Amino acid sequence: MHYKERKDAVGYLEATFREIYPQDTSFRDQATARLEQLTMPHWALGDLMDLAVDLAGMTRSLTPPVKRRKVVVMAGDHGVTAEGISKYPSEVTAQMIYNFVNGGAGINALARQAGAEVVVVDMGAAADLEDLVKDGRIISRKIGRGTDNMARGPAMSRTNAVLAVEAGIELAGKLAPDVDVFGTGDMGIGNTTPSAAIGAVLTGKKVADVTGRGTGLDDAGLEHKIKIIEQAIKVNQPDPKDGLDVLAKVGGFEIAGIAGLIIGAAAQRKPVVVDGFISTAGALIAYSLEPFVRDYIICAHRSVEQGHRFMHEKLQRQPMLDLNMRLGEGTGAALAMNLVEAAARILTEVATFEEAGVTG
Amino acid sequence: MHYKERKDAVGYLEATFREIYPQDTSFRDQATARLEQLTMPHWALGDLMDLAVDLAGMTRSLTPPVKRRKVVVMAGDHGVTAEGISKYPSEVTAQMIYNFVNGGAGINALARQAGAEVVVVDMGAAADLEDLVKDGRIISRKIGRGTDNMARGPAMSRTNAVLAVEAGIELAGKLAPDVDVFGTGDMGIGNTTPSAAIGAVLTGKKVADVTGRGTGLDDAGLEHKIKIIEQAIKVNQPDPKDGLDVLAKVGGFEIAGIAGLIIGAAAQRKPVVVDGFISTAGALIAYSLEPFVRDYIICAHRSVEQGHRFMHEKLQRQPMLDLNMRLGEGTGAALAMNLVEAAARILTEVATFEEAGVTG
Repeated sequence: MHYKERKDAVGYLEATFREIYPQDTSFRDQATARLEQLTMPHWALGDLMDLAVDLAGMTRSLTPPVKRRKVVVMAGDHGVTAEGISKYPSEVTAQMIYNFVNGGAGINALARQAGAEVVVVDMGAAADLEDLVKDGRIISRKIGRGTDNMARGPAMSRTNAVLAVEAGIELAGKLAPDVDVFGTGDMGIGNTTPSAAIGAVLTGKKVADVTGRGTGLDDAGLEHKIKIIEQAIKVNQPDPKDGLDVLAKVGGFEIAGIAGLIIGAAAQRKPVVVDGFISTAGALIAYSLEPFVRDYIICAHRSVEQGHRFMHEKLQRQPMLDLNMRLGEGTGAALAMNLVEAAARILTEVATFEEAGVTG
Repeated sequence: MHYKERKDAVGYLEATFREIYPQDTSFRDQATARLEQLTMPHWALGDLMDLAVDLAGMTRSLTPPVKRRKVVVMAGDHGVTAEGISKYPSEVTAQMIYNFVNGGAGINALARQAGAEVVVVDMGAAADLEDLVKDGRIISRKIGRGTDNMARGPAMSRTNAVLAVEAGIELAGKLAPDVDVFGTGDMGIGNTTPSAAIGAVLTGKKVADVTGRGTGLDDAGLEHKIKIIEQAIKVNQPDPKDGLDVLAKVGGFEIAGIAGLIIGAAAQRKPVVVDGFISTAGALIAYSLEPFVRDYIICAHRSVEQGHRFMHEKLQRQPMLDLNMRLGEGTGAALAMNLVEAAARILTEVATFEEAGVTG
């Protein structure tokens, strides 16, 4: 079902949620039993073996497919940039989209390394990108030309929040037949600001505890950013028990798309590697709407953004990597796909003591 | 020069040390200058960018070659297993070598994932492995059939320690024309015991602080292992200022081979990804002999073995990964080769603000 075709937005979301089941415990148990017999000391590959069990539980397979990888980079702009919360102007969002399609960005280099394809989606860039859409170089699920300024009112209507999440779900379903592992990515100047707001509302932490320097604010800039986020929360009063309300009031179009992609991946029983701070804000929204999505999430890395760890705590998921990165774009997700492949290979390629004739 | 051809062992080592220069600061500076102009916030790929600078400095190139990767797995047995310091019998060393050549071990799976070749070297397994040597499936640089029991006297003679290090150097030189990035690996039942002894002597920490459970000792087993290591140090009195003395008295043949491989890689100006606890003990020996080797070392991961972090502190190198692994074999080195490739790609494939027409 294409998202534009359905009438009842909440009905589509609810129908998708009903397709999301927890990981299969039988496949988890079978994977664990095999991993415990591999020619190595017990569980000697640590977190990779935990991940291998997760992959078996997600995919209902003892040979989890991981070969076809796509990092879906969701782009959007943010009205709150009017408050001077980023060092870069909003034009950079569109400029970076051109950089993505030309293969010159960080995500392109790291996706090539990881054998992953980059899919760029315009969820709500402020620019006209129709030329790229017509050429098939990006996908458009554009909800609007940037959000409204959340410091003065809601970032978007609830209807648009639902539409944007649905677009992500629909896209996951559309891509799923050619994808074994999804990765999330983001592009949007200013988007650490709504992400920190979402983090504060959904983790219950203070704004100052979840807000970082984004693209590189100095102390005064950081202080200002914290005040703007506090103002946005005060003005909008997002309801922490209603993920769509939080998303609409202090979110972003690309964050909504990411939330939808995660929900869609979970409904398709595909692993989804969640990138950094912005992607994890999207994951928190998805998790608040349907907690079972967590069973399909692999947290790629811990970002330099200080609030990231609280988001991971809320999700109860440990990130795989910690490399002082803070780029977004899906770069951490691409890197972590190597670990996903490694985990699958451990489950499928390493001999047991019996198979190898090694004394156990 | 083949190591068997030279007369004066120390002369060969000294001659190799004279070929080891620090990283080239000019190439480091040029790499840094380019990385600072890439289309991303300043240094937003964090540790990977630091690694990219290192690669430029090591290889004297702004396009550091990283495609041809070999993980060299050094194997050896340990007389100290007579003291009951491991859960597994020494026969497992040879059994695992067969597992390596049959492609069924952890390192095989992870090396395949990372596009790396596995080279197995018999430095001193207790078994006869001539069939594998004749078939060219492993390389022999066998110094002896296992070390002597270090709890009762030196693990090996100083002459054999020198021969073993030289073998590693010579092998690095022999492999170098077909290798861009070396990785180190180990196999040797009982070898966390000499590694912890080396760690204690060369870091100055207490034995109890650097000794872990190895393949899975219980509390009583760990306590016993600590006592045996303390005894070995007391009996042998290794001189912390003389790396060859430490190696001979409380080391191992495979640890010596690893030290030699690292020294040889540095002399060839090739990056060498140092695996886990045992490999890092080898790196400490190499570093104690020639401190400039550190400029060519990439520490792959932090092992579960508790002493590992003190070794990294001594080397003043941060490990890239922390995944609760404790297998050895070079598994961490293989995984980290993905990060080495990623770092090189960031330097060579990501566009600058000017190249991409993005507002900086």
